[in-house]
Amino acid sequence: MSLLVIGTVAFDAIETPFGKTDKIIGGAATYASMSASYFKKNINLVSVVGEDFPEEAIAMMQNRGIDTRGLQIKKGEKTFFWARKYHEDMNSRDTLDTQLNVLSTFDPIIPDEYQDCEFLMLGNLMPSIQMSVLQRLKKRPKLVVMDTMNFWMEIALNDLLKMISMVDVLTINDAEARQLTGEYSLVKAARKVLTMGPKYLIIKKGEHGALLFHGNNVFYAPALPLEDVFDPTGAGDTFAGGFIGHLHNSGDISFEAMKRGVIYGSAMASFCVEKFGLERIVSLTDSEVDERVQQFIDLVQFDITLV
Amino acid sequence: MSLLVIGTVAFDAIETPFGKTDKIIGGAATYASMSASYFKKNINLVSVVGEDFPEEAIAMMQNRGIDTRGLQIKKGEKTFFWARKYHEDMNSRDTLDTQLNVLSTFDPIIPDEYQDCEFLMLGNLMPSIQMSVLQRLKKRPKLVVMDTMNFWMEIALNDLLKMISMVDVLTINDAEARQLTGEYSLVKAARKVLTMGPKYLIIKKGEHGALLFHGNNVFYAPALPLEDVFDPTGAGDTFAGGFIGHLHNSGDISFEAMKRGVIYGSAMASFCVEKFGLERIVSLTDSEVDERVQQFIDLVQFDITLV
Repeated sequence: MSLLVIGTVAFDAIETPFGKTDKIIGGAATYASMSASYFKKNINLVSVVGEDFPEEAIAMMQNRGIDTRGLQIKKGEKTFFWARKYHEDMNSRDTLDTQLNVLSTFDPIIPDEYQDCEFLMLGNLMPSIQMSVLQRLKKRPKLVVMDTMNFWMEIALNDLLKMISMVDVLTINDAEARQLTGEYSLVKAARKVLTMGPKYLIIKKGEHGALLFHGNNVFYAPALPLEDVFDPTGAGDTFAGGFIGHLHNSGDISFEAMKRGVIYGSAMASFCVEKFGLERIVSLTDSEVDERVQQFIDLVQFDITLV
Repeated sequence: MSLLVIGTVAFDAIETPFGKTDKIIGGAATYASMSASYFKKNINLVSVVGEDFPEEAIAMMQNRGIDTRGLQIKKGEKTFFWARKYHEDMNSRDTLDTQLNVLSTFDPIIPDEYQDCEFLMLGNLMPSIQMSVLQRLKKRPKLVVMDTMNFWMEIALNDLLKMISMVDVLTINDAEARQLTGEYSLVKAARKVLTMGPKYLIIKKGEHGALLFHGNNVFYAPALPLEDVFDPTGAGDTFAGGFIGHLHNSGDISFEAMKRGVIYGSAMASFCVEKFGLERIVSLTDSEVDERVQQFIDLVQFDITLV
């Protein structure tokens, strides 16, 4: 039973009100697989980088038990690069530079050893690439979770809708839920998304937490109030990694398990935003993760008994 | 043991994306006392209206067990009037018209029968008037809760800070917390407010719930995801009324009781926004309130046991 994570492995350059970075390691699949690695090993990565991608970064992932045989390294080519600047509220950002590089011709190859995939995390990527990964798995995984972003709604909506129709869980943020459905109310937006294919929808609201919808059920996971959101880069991917990592570990894909997954995902994301890039996610201890989860438990705990 | 509520009793005219009203009954003290009346009677009102204020509206409050002997009716004068228009996100609004009328000379009189006040709700009003109410009580109440708004930060900051220093619980929204402290982070803002006098701070975040701060403790109460927020008018006052109403009923002012109070307040506010003005708050049943509170319990319930 393995977890397969696909998505970008990339260079980021980030500017926030707290500072800026040169090129650092980023990418949806990097954050998601690193985050998932705190729950269970047996994580396989499918992605692509250029010759310029540092071996140490690949070793970092391997050290967390991530299998990188599915990470293609393109000779003579350059790694995907995204530079952006966040505003004070950390919800809005400007893209300063995007260089697709190896991503523009990415054809995902699934190593045979990855075919026992039971949990599939389709990290943010071109929907057609997400789809080819699903098609190249000989057996449909037990659970397919997909993350995406507004960009694909603008330039590849048909592909995106087709991909969405094939997954079990979709994770998007509040603005994307509104854009995808044309509904301002998140409850109405969720109802529409749940007719598009997914049985579960997670709407990420950043500092305001996350909502998990399933049928007529709703679960509201808070975000931990933090002194500062230092850098939101990768928070959504880290959330997704914690979410699917917990499910992968428990093997349970019930609504109750997903609620727990949302809490674990939120806890991992709360670490992610405390420092630039992957810095905080590289070397957490299990007890740090447990302590953080306990903070989430305490944060929402109240005692009302209705007669 | 009684609850004293002061604040405006007013006419509102409201425009939202869902429609508009002519003059309807509103005011901070109206919403707060009506909301509190679902928890325990023995509620006393101090406010002022003009001759134009309808007797039926006063009867409506009396029917909910609210004592209106402290409601001054000014012959030949007109009731405070506020017209506003909400934008789609319901968090931003434009004031279209404000007529202070009787409010400009309001001198609150506390009937002798109100002097047994143990719980005091200082609804949003000029800070100097809030202060005179506190000063005119012969015995300091067991718990003083104060609501205010950004307007007073702009035109009466010194009075406001003095008033804030004298209360136990302050309730403000997220934008107001930022404005009052100059801190964008709500955690940092809360820490500053807790040095200004109050032992408890509630930051209301509308559709994103509410945060209760006390010392180093934080409690995050979600808001119920609703199909539509029809009209946010009075939601904050209704929240405050449910909050203090629960404490008034239980007599308990511990942090645990306040957490319950925040949930009850949130439940009452979730009714308030479902219809225009007071419509939904006028005639709830106890079982409707209980069912709504149960929805809040279900909304955040998850089962993680850390070993």
